[in-house]
Amino acid sequence: MACLKCTWTQHPKIILMMRIDIITCVPDLLDSFFAHSILKRAQQAGHAEVVITDIRDYSVNKHRTIDDYAFGGGAGMVLQIEPIARCIRALQAERVYDEVIYLTPDGEQMNQKIVNQLSLKGNLILLCGHYKGVDQRVRDLFVTREISIGDYVLSGGELAAAVLADAIIRLIPGVLNDETSALTDSFQDNLLAPPVYSRPADFEGHKVPEILLSGHEAKIEEWRYEQSVSRTKARRPDLLK
Amino acid sequence: MACLKCTWTQHPKIILMMRIDIITCVPDLLDSFFAHSILKRAQQAGHAEVVITDIRDYSVNKHRTIDDYAFGGGAGMVLQIEPIARCIRALQAERVYDEVIYLTPDGEQMNQKIVNQLSLKGNLILLCGHYKGVDQRVRDLFVTREISIGDYVLSGGELAAAVLADAIIRLIPGVLNDETSALTDSFQDNLLAPPVYSRPADFEGHKVPEILLSGHEAKIEEWRYEQSVSRTKARRPDLLK
Repeated sequence: MACLKCTWTQHPKIILMMRIDIITCVPDLLDSFFAHSILKRAQQAGHAEVVITDIRDYSVNKHRTIDDYAFGGGAGMVLQIEPIARCIRALQAERVYDEVIYLTPDGEQMNQKIVNQLSLKGNLILLCGHYKGVDQRVRDLFVTREISIGDYVLSGGELAAAVLADAIIRLIPGVLNDETSALTDSFQDNLLAPPVYSRPADFEGHKVPEILLSGHEAKIEEWRYEQSVSRTKARRPDLLK
Repeated sequence: MACLKCTWTQHPKIILMMRIDIITCVPDLLDSFFAHSILKRAQQAGHAEVVITDIRDYSVNKHRTIDDYAFGGGAGMVLQIEPIARCIRALQAERVYDEVIYLTPDGEQMNQKIVNQLSLKGNLILLCGHYKGVDQRVRDLFVTREISIGDYVLSGGELAAAVLADAIIRLIPGVLNDETSALTDSFQDNLLAPPVYSRPADFEGHKVPEILLSGHEAKIEEWRYEQSVSRTKARRPDLLK
């Protein structure tokens, strides 16, 4: 396999393995994701490694607290800077990270282009906020990129980190069983995917479009393209601009 | 508690309990979410019930298959209509559902307004696609609403369903410890949240803004509002339109 990090296509011994570190105060929340489905297969096959770190392991007080009230008052707790700083520094002492990403609703809007870019990186840290978020100084001093998965608020950044990790890892070559599968996704060509149909051809009188049963490959592709365009025009005309 | 479903504020015996059914072919993926954090508390306190159903339980063949090739060819498997139809009909025979939501990247873009609306509903079905998605006839015949959590592709709809469920459930009164906490979130007033700080006041020379230590409540609120506005102008001017 060619090395993606330099131009030498015959790089002999470097095995590409993306490492994603997720820093969270609710590590259990993420257990079942990375233990199933393509994320598990990706890790077993050596395409990616996802390591979840509990911020509490970097607390220095005996109650392992990591949050406190906000200066200036108001509802909601804030994740303090000290445990997070120690955690990020400990990881950075072990290896170089391409990005330290904070998942936050006021970050840059995640889209497929950003995911494509990140899938080419080596090591990433994903920092999950919880409660009212992290102390602003964490963002100022340690975070290199802030990403939002959408215009809505979640109970924490853990689901957002899982979404980002899933979107990235499925693009790593070899992770999906059939590599062309990701290339026909929505957004990869700024078009929504066409409708899909499977057996039975007739479900209680509702039939699949005849063209799909015709066996005429070129016409089927043409139909799918037309469907993609018309669906995109109807649902997401902004993508066509 | 007043009934949200009618105007009678002294409704005596109706206990509000939102029920969310998630239909998936990878139920294990979701285990840890709903077993932790606020989602667990919300269920224990009787505010919401999340029931995960495996589509395979509605397969009628002995291998419990639920997917098949796409008519017309091409990469990726399609979730077939028959098991999903049986599953949805079985649930609908038990209770009335306000919506049958299919999570798909070509759906309506999820935002806080949609989440707010859905948090007032009673029973919801969330249908998760996987592989290339569900047979189009499922969408035509059973789905009442299609929602996308963002412009990117995931390995399945499970994470999207978890995101939607989390965003909804945290808004149900009583779920968050401090109800004002959700009201000061980003997006609830079309402004991004202001920066937050917690102890220590001085981290390696990086100090919190003095105003936050002043104890002057009105001035702090003014500062926070100004920070929200300037952050929104800088990062998301579209929200101010």
